[in-house]
Amino acid sequence: MINNITNVKGISCWGAHTGVKSMRRDLAIIYSEVPASAAATFTQNEVVAEPVKVSKRHIADGKAQAIVINAGNANACTGEQGRQGAEAMVDAMAEELGIDRELVLVASTGLIGKEFPTDEIVAGIRENVKKLSNKANAGSFTANAILTTDTYAKEGFIEFELDGKKAAMGGIAKGSGMIHPNMATMLAFVVTDVAVSAEMLNKMVKEAVNKSFNMITVDGDTSTNDMVVVLANGLAGNEEITSKEDPGYAEFRDKLEEMLIHLAKLIVSDGEGASKFVEYRVVNAPDEITARKLVRSISDSTLVKAAMYGRDPNWGRIICAAGNSGVPFNYEDVDLYIGKEGTEVKVLEGGKPQELDRNYMKKILRESHIFIHLDLKNGDAEAVGWGADLTTDYVVFNSVYTT
Amino acid sequence: MINNITNVKGISCWGAHTGVKSMRRDLAIIYSEVPASAAATFTQNEVVAEPVKVSKRHIADGKAQAIVINAGNANACTGEQGRQGAEAMVDAMAEELGIDRELVLVASTGLIGKEFPTDEIVAGIRENVKKLSNKANAGSFTANAILTTDTYAKEGFIEFELDGKKAAMGGIAKGSGMIHPNMATMLAFVVTDVAVSAEMLNKMVKEAVNKSFNMITVDGDTSTNDMVVVLANGLAGNEEITSKEDPGYAEFRDKLEEMLIHLAKLIVSDGEGASKFVEYRVVNAPDEITARKLVRSISDSTLVKAAMYGRDPNWGRIICAAGNSGVPFNYEDVDLYIGKEGTEVKVLEGGKPQELDRNYMKKILRESHIFIHLDLKNGDAEAVGWGADLTTDYVVFNSVYTT
Repeated sequence: MINNITNVKGISCWGAHTGVKSMRRDLAIIYSEVPASAAATFTQNEVVAEPVKVSKRHIADGKAQAIVINAGNANACTGEQGRQGAEAMVDAMAEELGIDRELVLVASTGLIGKEFPTDEIVAGIRENVKKLSNKANAGSFTANAILTTDTYAKEGFIEFELDGKKAAMGGIAKGSGMIHPNMATMLAFVVTDVAVSAEMLNKMVKEAVNKSFNMITVDGDTSTNDMVVVLANGLAGNEEITSKEDPGYAEFRDKLEEMLIHLAKLIVSDGEGASKFVEYRVVNAPDEITARKLVRSISDSTLVKAAMYGRDPNWGRIICAAGNSGVPFNYEDVDLYIGKEGTEVKVLEGGKPQELDRNYMKKILRESHIFIHLDLKNGDAEAVGWGADLTTDYVVFNSVYTT
Repeated sequence: MINNITNVKGISCWGAHTGVKSMRRDLAIIYSEVPASAAATFTQNEVVAEPVKVSKRHIADGKAQAIVINAGNANACTGEQGRQGAEAMVDAMAEELGIDRELVLVASTGLIGKEFPTDEIVAGIRENVKKLSNKANAGSFTANAILTTDTYAKEGFIEFELDGKKAAMGGIAKGSGMIHPNMATMLAFVVTDVAVSAEMLNKMVKEAVNKSFNMITVDGDTSTNDMVVVLANGLAGNEEITSKEDPGYAEFRDKLEEMLIHLAKLIVSDGEGASKFVEYRVVNAPDEITARKLVRSISDSTLVKAAMYGRDPNWGRIICAAGNSGVPFNYEDVDLYIGKEGTEVKVLEGGKPQELDRNYMKKILRESHIFIHLDLKNGDAEAVGWGADLTTDYVVFNSVYTT
């Protein structure tokens, strides 16, 4: 049996081909049979795609019931024509589903600055809403229909008990970031049948995004279209979570984090230009924000990423990148470990370089999953993040691509 | 006739080989026959090399008379042994020159975390102070002795009139940033015979550094050792500049900016991994800080740098990188130009993509000097910055290097 978003109570979906992309499915629809609590985070880029503007408005009341996503055209830098296109997608969804248009969210991914193919997409919506299904293949079609340069579909599913009730959560995501990155929007859509207030869900989604999508790095640029949406329709029948003290709060928070981290790591793992998956962990920091800033500064460093590609245990670059984070730390206190998870090697102790067996280091850095672990010895907060290496393929893919 | 720092009144210098580096000169000494007004900017990295700590202390009073620079060992992450080494360099300089030790500045560049070769360098200082000279070859030796992975020496010289007096300014710099970047400290030393108060010089150096060294980008990381020092010994005989209203203030400010921009651009031009020099200009911004942030955000973007390598007029990446700057701007107002200086092509007008002749764009992007020009149409401030492209060679150089 295949578990995906269709196994979440009340959720149906479909993924179809409208012709915006030549060969692959390019239109996805997700529908909850009842209005759901809804929360989202959106791109921090100053330049914002038209669907982002619409979805921000529609989710402001914490309710949504349907999501429509098109792939192949980002509907960004498209002006009035694009604005009308995003609104037309909403209108078609609301009419076909017979729901209030404010309950519809819309997302797009693809090329920036191309005229938006409104007619094709609206026709696709009208034709495909009637195919909404909760069969497993519908989930797969949906996960595939949101992809652009991704090399595989990204899905997750968890079942758990909450307040004595069986609950489920499913998610899909897209993003590769390594090739054609101005088509490389990060999108994630998570549905769950947990009952949770919109206000509480909003807080929990922001926290979970900070620990997942905000802790991955491929090339540092965020797109005009990035969006993470969570719908919680309450059909599991648990007592609604409305505060941190409620039964089920901690359990649901952990499952939500687990799902978003899972999807975020799948995004890092994708991309033909990447040869390694690197996990960065900063421990014993004075607070979590400090730890996160250090993780991001190290994992964003072009030099650290190139060293990982070259199997170089270059602690100088890691410490230098940490020093560029803008947060104070005393390098004469720190221990640094590099290597394979579980058998990582201490390369600095109390800021002092340790004798290294260079052949052994080369050997363990040949692994595709590398672990970098910085111990600040100055508190008990920690943060973890994930990134790819910087390869010659990355440069080739990103330079041969033509707008 | 060769003009260099030795043509500045009262300045003598020398560059020697002590053996820290196997083949090249590795010790530079610069001396002013009278104590000079002195100002500097130092690395913003949290991890600071030992010579930076010493020089920060010694320049706090705004006076200096001598600078000693060693190449091959950065004296960073070297602990107590390194601290003593930096102090020993100062002691040797002060004794041999017969000046107060607080008048000596010290800088280092080279490998991080290697035991500091104090004895070799101190012996080198004692032997070479007596060779201080104001002949042109001494200037060349000095400019060469501060290099590490640089492929050429970086020098500048300007003569000008100030307050009716003949004045001069000379400078040397090092930095390449493309290969072996944890040896790629940026250093610049500028000497002038202009009379200027230490306080005024300090303000002027900070402003000029903001328009020059702070506006170049190679890979975004700043090293543990970066330092820009300016000595002004007053021997030109002009009336001392002590305020912005003084005659000569504007003239000297312009010359200082010209020199620092010249040296900064030489650093960007160096580096075997770079194939292009890109000039980024943001005009008609509401204020200079906004303009600078936009320049930095665009020029730091891995995707923009890779597009330049690939001769791709990828305005989507440029606008996306601008959107990631954190400063508000309205992309529906902006014009964007890409190309060769003087014949750049308008690719966006009022945020709208323009029809491009792709063959012509490819042709002009084949140039080694590319010009990117963003017009915000929202004010009259501007900023300019410089960067290299991201090439497959960059990745190769930075990944094959082993600590």
